[in-house]
Amino acid sequence: MPGGEEPLLRPGSPTSNDSAIAEEDALLTGERTGKQDITSITRSKWREIGLFVWALLATAAVVILAVVYQHSQTTGKSAESDSIPTGKRNLIFMVSDGMGPTSLALTRGYRQFTDKLPWDDTLIIDEHMIGQSRTRSSSSLVTDSAAGATAFSCGEKSYNGAISVLPDHTPCGSVMEAAKRLGYMTGLVVTTRITDATPAVFASHVRRREMEDDVALQMVGETHPLGRMVDLMFGGGRCHFLPKSNEHSCRNDTTDVVSVAKDAGWSYISSRSEFDSLGSAPSLPLLGLFADQDIPYEIDRRFQDSTYPPLKSTALKALEALSAATKDTEQGFFIMIEGSRIDHAGHANDPAAQVHEVLAYDETIATVLDFIERTETPTLMVSTSDHETGGLSTARQLHPTYPHYLWYPSVLANAFHSSVWTAHQYHLYLDALSHNISASTDETTLKNEKLTFLTTLASSNLGIHDATSDELSTLVSAPAIAAYSFADMVSRRAQTGWSTHGHSGADVNIFASNRDWAKDLAGNHENTEIGEFLRRYLGAEEEVEKITAELREKMGVTHLGEIPQEGERLDGQDHLDHYHGDHRKRCTGCGA
Amino acid sequence: MPGGEEPLLRPGSPTSNDSAIAEEDALLTGERTGKQDITSITRSKWREIGLFVWALLATAAVVILAVVYQHSQTTGKSAESDSIPTGKRNLIFMVSDGMGPTSLALTRGYRQFTDKLPWDDTLIIDEHMIGQSRTRSSSSLVTDSAAGATAFSCGEKSYNGAISVLPDHTPCGSVMEAAKRLGYMTGLVVTTRITDATPAVFASHVRRREMEDDVALQMVGETHPLGRMVDLMFGGGRCHFLPKSNEHSCRNDTTDVVSVAKDAGWSYISSRSEFDSLGSAPSLPLLGLFADQDIPYEIDRRFQDSTYPPLKSTALKALEALSAATKDTEQGFFIMIEGSRIDHAGHANDPAAQVHEVLAYDETIATVLDFIERTETPTLMVSTSDHETGGLSTARQLHPTYPHYLWYPSVLANAFHSSVWTAHQYHLYLDALSHNISASTDETTLKNEKLTFLTTLASSNLGIHDATSDELSTLVSAPAIAAYSFADMVSRRAQTGWSTHGHSGADVNIFASNRDWAKDLAGNHENTEIGEFLRRYLGAEEEVEKITAELREKMGVTHLGEIPQEGERLDGQDHLDHYHGDHRKRCTGCGA
Repeated sequence: MPGGEEPLLRPGSPTSNDSAIAEEDALLTGERTGKQDITSITRSKWREIGLFVWALLATAAVVILAVVYQHSQTTGKSAESDSIPTGKRNLIFMVSDGMGPTSLALTRGYRQFTDKLPWDDTLIIDEHMIGQSRTRSSSSLVTDSAAGATAFSCGEKSYNGAISVLPDHTPCGSVMEAAKRLGYMTGLVVTTRITDATPAVFASHVRRREMEDDVALQMVGETHPLGRMVDLMFGGGRCHFLPKSNEHSCRNDTTDVVSVAKDAGWSYISSRSEFDSLGSAPSLPLLGLFADQDIPYEIDRRFQDSTYPPLKSTALKALEALSAATKDTEQGFFIMIEGSRIDHAGHANDPAAQVHEVLAYDETIATVLDFIERTETPTLMVSTSDHETGGLSTARQLHPTYPHYLWYPSVLANAFHSSVWTAHQYHLYLDALSHNISASTDETTLKNEKLTFLTTLASSNLGIHDATSDELSTLVSAPAIAAYSFADMVSRRAQTGWSTHGHSGADVNIFASNRDWAKDLAGNHENTEIGEFLRRYLGAEEEVEKITAELREKMGVTHLGEIPQEGERLDGQDHLDHYHGDHRKRCTGCGA
Repeated sequence: MPGGEEPLLRPGSPTSNDSAIAEEDALLTGERTGKQDITSITRSKWREIGLFVWALLATAAVVILAVVYQHSQTTGKSAESDSIPTGKRNLIFMVSDGMGPTSLALTRGYRQFTDKLPWDDTLIIDEHMIGQSRTRSSSSLVTDSAAGATAFSCGEKSYNGAISVLPDHTPCGSVMEAAKRLGYMTGLVVTTRITDATPAVFASHVRRREMEDDVALQMVGETHPLGRMVDLMFGGGRCHFLPKSNEHSCRNDTTDVVSVAKDAGWSYISSRSEFDSLGSAPSLPLLGLFADQDIPYEIDRRFQDSTYPPLKSTALKALEALSAATKDTEQGFFIMIEGSRIDHAGHANDPAAQVHEVLAYDETIATVLDFIERTETPTLMVSTSDHETGGLSTARQLHPTYPHYLWYPSVLANAFHSSVWTAHQYHLYLDALSHNISASTDETTLKNEKLTFLTTLASSNLGIHDATSDELSTLVSAPAIAAYSFADMVSRRAQTGWSTHGHSGADVNIFASNRDWAKDLAGNHENTEIGEFLRRYLGAEEEVEKITAELREKMGVTHLGEIPQEGERLDGQDHLDHYHGDHRKRCTGCGA
């Protein structure tokens, strides 16, 4: 403060000082007044006015600065704690089962070719890549879907085959169970059996993934010790809900799970028309099972879409239903949506089927992102895979000579059907043939007839017009593995490589709709960290622990199944066990 | 503002108003004074004091708020513009040639096994993963290293084989040339030939990567139209620097590039001892060529490290040298460090050699991060690959029966040498044998002698004690492809899969030492975006354009080489050309 104002700082000795006043006036007005003829009172009055203006301006400045600062703090905070919304919120967890990073490169190249897109064209999902996940299980460097999904549901590593059960064979609470307990609405949408490993882990606990009959009963709440944990389920796998007396059943007992579910209050639908008739706020709990087993591959139903609803439609309907159901509730919803059959195309080593499954998944991602865009409740989508399937490679050496650097998407574009569908048609043909041939038909005639049929089938279904006699002969002599043989004919011509009909230990990608909210998943992470993130996002960390304790108390062998015998080999290795002489070349994929 | 103060807002009509004053006092003191007996002057004085205190407090509040706001803005800004440092800065660009994401899963599993580490143990590099890069070239869905590296150097897609030359066969300015022009010091450190594609693109321009003799001359500055662009080069490839009269030469002419370089002022070293004798601030320009061709694989020299400096040592020495040279300069340095031979292990389909190359790269990453930690100049490390090699998969089905989910790291741990080294020893043996056998030695005796030798060799070099007669017979009958056969023996036992001896179109990972500075590379990107980022980080965007213009003017066929003939197939496909009947199974890797 200027020295000239000093006297005023001492109210105890109020002295009048002209020069000080003149200075003060100058400070306030910016001008020396020099007018000594004004009366003391007027001067005092002007001084008051000046002081008041100063005080007023300073106060105004305080107010403005305070507002600006407040605003900057708010903005800064929202940027900083962009980690996770704190109020009501939704979580959409998507799983691309068996989709390794190379499935995306394959599909991108395919789409650039078929749609004549530039080299920098990408899938929607590519724009949301944030990290990678390591996938090994507690029992093997190569996980299965059960252990992979248990890492998501429980945030814990377990053995291959475990459905939300730990290596010590005790149950672990799932993030969906915890969410349900906390008041979230919950849903599961898949294209495989709803009792398959990935959906199963969220709402059931068994010691072996094969116990799908038990899983079905737990999922509808009948035998789950905590009651019903899911509000909506869409998928296939109807056969596990039908009593064994029903011709479409695959249950080992006489329980009619559909009736059990209906009695417990579930609405049940099983057809495309029923699905299409659902309003935007259908009654929950809602069970929609659209196929006895898996919903057919995209590639096999893209020209006849009337029988089964596609994933993007079931996903959207589920989001709308859960959204409507949580419109006035305190908590939002948590849903798991799975592109289940990318994995199956990998197991079949069928690149044509796979690109269409990946494209369908990508369309579903787009649908989900659109939903998030227009929904009011803060909603996060996180997408990842449980593992890679098939050891897919976008390059395949066919000759001993050094390979050209390329693969041919055009071959995949020419295929109209999956290898599995094609093999199915072949098997139907063989069935019919076996009923129609007379005993006198000789072997050669029979073989020639089959060769003619297969030549036409390869051409019409797979777009392969140069099937070799070796390839056709293998199909005739080994019809049981025809699906693999057909897939190999496509893969070889496209020069896409596969190393196994099982899974591989590749890292898989993580994607998110909001990089800030999901920043804890940026970079390379253990798959269990994804599970930890899901429960953290939902604020369900403590609740998961509580549920684990409760399940351990309540679940016995009746629900969990027997503990596998010691020495019984589950699907995997006994913790990195040593090589034990398994090396000879008897590769199915190679036709050897 | 309270209405009571209103009169004071009109200095043109200064009226005395007791009630107004009383209110004002009340506003300032919080109390009604009610003392009507004090003189008007005293009252006025007290009012002045009150106003002054108000003004003072408000002003103090303004100052405090302004400081606080300023601080919050600064903090906020530094968080926001964490993108790229603006002052003097260094850039360390690292390339893991041919390393796909699966190479990391393979190496991680291997290390967890050999070092008895827990399942969540990772490599150093894993902690710095930020995104992925799409790798296709302008001529194919599967790039070669030349087009891949040109995407980094020029930020442009080009055809397979192009060394910083565009699809129209004209040169494009490289980020290193631009950096050099701007005053940065520059360096290249590799483990392959320094004239190989990845280093070549940064300091030379030719229309075919095979023109390594020309590349060598451009790199030392002799025939580069802009003069010397590199200050330090460490690597192999000495043979392209020696005149064809020298027994170690692989040049097609008599030019002694080492002499040319020395005459131009380069310091030249060619041995481990000379390297070890370098001080921490060696004289630049400095050329260190430590092998005629490639520096041997890590796996083959880990127990005898005296002949060649390892990558982490050459990288560190280069960083120290460039750091010392830029100690007092305005600009920092730009260096490219390549783990070149991860790619070679992929081409050989040799998983044992690969894990050791990846581990050496990881150690180099650690060394670089340490350097960054202790250097004062802001320094960013970005690491990526140009492409995946081999179509590696951490799973391999050997039998027609459904595979167990596993692979065996123990097999890789048992291998003491690479398949290439082992084949070399076999070839030396065959040479010696051919000189020692007498004409009378019969075929059977000869074959048995070879089988005995090979059995011992497989055991001692590869740790394989159960070589089958089929495997040994193939080695005897096809010694030319012995390296592939040995690698297949290891891969099969470890159950690691490969789809080609060439490259694949898989996406590769991007890593960075600083997530904020490199945030533009987070997520999935075209490889050209990495090139664009490098030049942006260095502030060299305009300079690159200038250099491109200059190069186009100055470079003719003499330096660039002839334009490839129309119809001549370069290494790749002619923009996604259609499948043309290439499908028969003649896979080298399968031994068929």
